[in-house]
Amino acid sequence: MNESKLISPRKLAGFWELPPEKEILFEQMQEKIKKVFETNCFVPLDTPVLELSEILLAKSSGEMDKEVFAFTKGSTSMCMRYDLTVPLARFVASNANTLEFPFKRYQIGKNYRGEKPQRGRFREFYQCDADIIGNEALSLVADAECVKLYLDCFNALGYPVVVEISNRNLLFGLIEDCNNSDKAEEIITLLDKFDKIGEENLVKSLAELEINEKCIKKYISAIKVKGSFEQVKESLTKISNNPLFCQAISQLEEVNSYLNAFNCDKEGYIFNVGIIRGHNYYTGTVFEAYLKGRRDLPAFGGGGRYENLAGYFTDKKLPGVGMSIGLTRMFDLLDQNGLLPEVKKSNIDLFIIPLGEYLKDCISLCAYFRENGIKAEVAYDNKSFKSKMKEADRRGIPYILVVGENEVNSGTFALKNMTSGEQQLLSKEECLKVLK
Amino acid sequence: MNESKLISPRKLAGFWELPPEKEILFEQMQEKIKKVFETNCFVPLDTPVLELSEILLAKSSGEMDKEVFAFTKGSTSMCMRYDLTVPLARFVASNANTLEFPFKRYQIGKNYRGEKPQRGRFREFYQCDADIIGNEALSLVADAECVKLYLDCFNALGYPVVVEISNRNLLFGLIEDCNNSDKAEEIITLLDKFDKIGEENLVKSLAELEINEKCIKKYISAIKVKGSFEQVKESLTKISNNPLFCQAISQLEEVNSYLNAFNCDKEGYIFNVGIIRGHNYYTGTVFEAYLKGRRDLPAFGGGGRYENLAGYFTDKKLPGVGMSIGLTRMFDLLDQNGLLPEVKKSNIDLFIIPLGEYLKDCISLCAYFRENGIKAEVAYDNKSFKSKMKEADRRGIPYILVVGENEVNSGTFALKNMTSGEQQLLSKEECLKVLK
Repeated sequence: MNESKLISPRKLAGFWELPPEKEILFEQMQEKIKKVFETNCFVPLDTPVLELSEILLAKSSGEMDKEVFAFTKGSTSMCMRYDLTVPLARFVASNANTLEFPFKRYQIGKNYRGEKPQRGRFREFYQCDADIIGNEALSLVADAECVKLYLDCFNALGYPVVVEISNRNLLFGLIEDCNNSDKAEEIITLLDKFDKIGEENLVKSLAELEINEKCIKKYISAIKVKGSFEQVKESLTKISNNPLFCQAISQLEEVNSYLNAFNCDKEGYIFNVGIIRGHNYYTGTVFEAYLKGRRDLPAFGGGGRYENLAGYFTDKKLPGVGMSIGLTRMFDLLDQNGLLPEVKKSNIDLFIIPLGEYLKDCISLCAYFRENGIKAEVAYDNKSFKSKMKEADRRGIPYILVVGENEVNSGTFALKNMTSGEQQLLSKEECLKVLK
Repeated sequence: MNESKLISPRKLAGFWELPPEKEILFEQMQEKIKKVFETNCFVPLDTPVLELSEILLAKSSGEMDKEVFAFTKGSTSMCMRYDLTVPLARFVASNANTLEFPFKRYQIGKNYRGEKPQRGRFREFYQCDADIIGNEALSLVADAECVKLYLDCFNALGYPVVVEISNRNLLFGLIEDCNNSDKAEEIITLLDKFDKIGEENLVKSLAELEINEKCIKKYISAIKVKGSFEQVKESLTKISNNPLFCQAISQLEEVNSYLNAFNCDKEGYIFNVGIIRGHNYYTGTVFEAYLKGRRDLPAFGGGGRYENLAGYFTDKKLPGVGMSIGLTRMFDLLDQNGLLPEVKKSNIDLFIIPLGEYLKDCISLCAYFRENGIKAEVAYDNKSFKSKMKEADRRGIPYILVVGENEVNSGTFALKNMTSGEQQLLSKEECLKVLK
C-alpha cells in the first residue's frame, strides 16, 4: 500500500485504552470487586449499552441531553447509557412481577458521556454499581450493607477507604426550620460546593440568595459536623429540633447500629454532614468513599438512598439504596499519584527456547506446562538464539528452558532462573514443581 | 406519578439482556474463556466501543457502512465497533514500536451491528477474540495455537467441539489451475454456499459464471474432501498439482504436525476443504469450531490467517492469525436447544431469618459467614416469619438458620437443609464447615 494513503491510527479523544500490562491490573480489580459483590449476594445484570432515548432521558431535565451520545437509526431515537441506574430502573420496572425483593443487583460496565475531553474526565468509563431495591419499603439495613460493601471492595483491592456518611434530610430539616424550603435546591447546591469555594464565598453566595445571617450560620455549622456517630449526634442536637432533622439523626443512628452489627472496622467510616451528593434523587442516607489518608484525592465512589427508583416507568413504589465505584477515574487517580503496584513487564512464566530441530519437542513441553496452569511460551519465532535470550531478559520472563538434542534425549532440562541466574537440571515434572 | 404519564420500560429490539440467573452462567463462561486465554499467554486489551469512522470503516467496502451504528458529535464522525479486529489493527499499528512480537492479545467485548433484528441475530453481541500478530513473518505454530485454543476453551466450558480446518489457497490454487482467477471471488463465494444451497444449485450457479464442467467437478470434488490429514492429503493429491495448491497442502501438513506436538485430542479436529469463511481478508489457514455431535448447529466460532493486519494504518507488514467465539450467539443456541445446565434459582447459600428483636445478631452472623466466603443473607425485610420461610423455599435457598433468643443465648443454631428437611444443632463454626 502506498504510504500517502495511510490513515493515522488514532483513537477518539477522551477514550480510555490501557496498555496490556496495566489492563491486567485493571481487570484484576474488576474481578475482585465482582467477587465481593457476589459474596454479598448481589446478582449480575448486563444491560445494553444502547437504550431508547425516551427511556434514558425520561428523568433528564435537559441537562443530560447535551452530554449524551444520541442518534437515530431508522425511525428510532437511541442513546448510549450515561449511567447504570436508569437501565436498572427500566429492568426492575419491567420485571417487577417476577423479581424477588429486596432485589440486589450489581453491574460493572462502561458508561458514556459526550462532555469535552479533559484531564481526569473520560467519555467512556467503567462504573461498578451495586443497588438494593425494595418493594414499597426497604430496611435501613440495606444502607449499612452498601457502606459495608465499600469497605469490603476496597480492602479486597488493597486500597482501604473511609466512608463518610450523612443523611440529606439533616439539611432539608434545617432548611425547613429556616423557612427556606422554596430555595432548598439552590441552598443544597451551594452547600455542596463548600470544599471547593471555601467558607467566605459560600457565605456570600447564600446571602445573595437572601438567606438571613442566622440561617447561614446554622447551615455552615451543620456541614462542618464530622466524627463518630456519638460526636455528630451531640453536635447536631444543639443545632435544631426540627422533626425531619431529628428523624434523619435517628436514621443515621440506626444505620450506625447495623454497621456495628456488620462488624465494620471503626476506622472505615465516619459521619460527615458535609457529604451532600449533587444528585437530586437521593432522599436519605448519602455516602462517599475516600482513600484512607488521602482526603485530598476525589472520592472513589459515592451513593445513597432514593425514595423511588422507577417512578417514570411504573406505579410500584421501589425505594432503593446504591453504591457506585468510579473505576476508570479511580484507576487513573491511583496511576497519576504513583499508587498502583509495579506492573509486570510480561505475563509469561516460562520461555522455552528451541535449539536446532527441536521445535516440536518444545511445543509438547509447552502443552504440558500449560495443562498444569503454567503460562509457558515457546520462542517459535524465526530469530537467532541470542536474540531470543535477550528477549526473555527484556520482557522480564522469570524462567527459561533451552531445549535441544541433549535435553530431549535425556528428558532432563536446565531450568534457568532469570533473576538469580541459577540453573537447575530437572525432569519436566520437577520443573513444574519449581514453577508452581 | 399519574399513570397516564408512565413511559413503557422497553428495551431496544435485538438487544440482549439476560435475567440474572442466566447472566451468572454467561459470566462464568466468559471467566473460563478468559482463563484459558491467559494460560496460553494472551494479554487482555479493552479498546473503546466508539472509534473514529475513518478508522472503523477504513477497510469497509461500503457493505458495513449500512450496518454500523454511526453518528456525529460536534464535528467528529464516529461509529460503534462492529468487530474487535479493526480496533486491534488500530492498536497494533499505533503501538508497533513498543510491542513484543508475536503479540498475543485477547479481547472479550460487545460489538454492534445495526442490522434488522431477527431470531438468532443480535444488534449487540459478545465476541471473544484471540489473535497472534507477527512482525513481517509469523510461524504456522500460531495457526496451531489458535486451533488448540478452541479445544481448550470449549473443554473448559464443558462443550467439546470439533475444529474443521482448511487452507484457502487450496481453492485459489484450483481456480488458478482452471484459469478462472478473474472470477476467483465469485467462485469462492458460491462454493461457500454449498451447505446451504446444495450441489445441484451450486453447479447451476457456477455454470452461469461460465465455468466449464471439468472445473466445476474439480471444485466440487475438492470441497467435499474431509477427514484426517492423511486422508485429505491422499484425496487432494489426485485433484491437482498446482504449486499454490501444493503449498497449501504442505502448510496444512505443518499445522497438523504442530497440533500433534501440542498433544491435541485427535477427535477434536479434522480437515475439511469445504471450510471457506466468507471474509476476504483470510489468506491461508481457516477453521471453524462445531459442537461435537451437533454438526447441524451453526459454528460457535471461526478464524484464520491473514497476510496483513493493519495495511490501512501502517507500512509495517503484520501477518496474523486469530480465533473468535461468538459468545452471545452460542449461548442463545445452547439455550434454544436445551443444552444449558439448569440454572440455580438463587445465588444465596444461607438465609438467616431473625425472630423478634434479634436482627442485629443475625447481621453479625451474616458478616461472619460472608467473611468466610459463604453467600449468606439476612431476611431483614419487614415480612412475616411464615412468608420468609416460604420465600426461602420458593427461591431454592439450600440452607436456613432461624435465630431468636435461645440461639443467641446458647450460641447454638439449628441449620436446616432445605432439600432434605434435616436440621442440625451446631455452633456457627460448625455451620460454616457444613456450608463449605
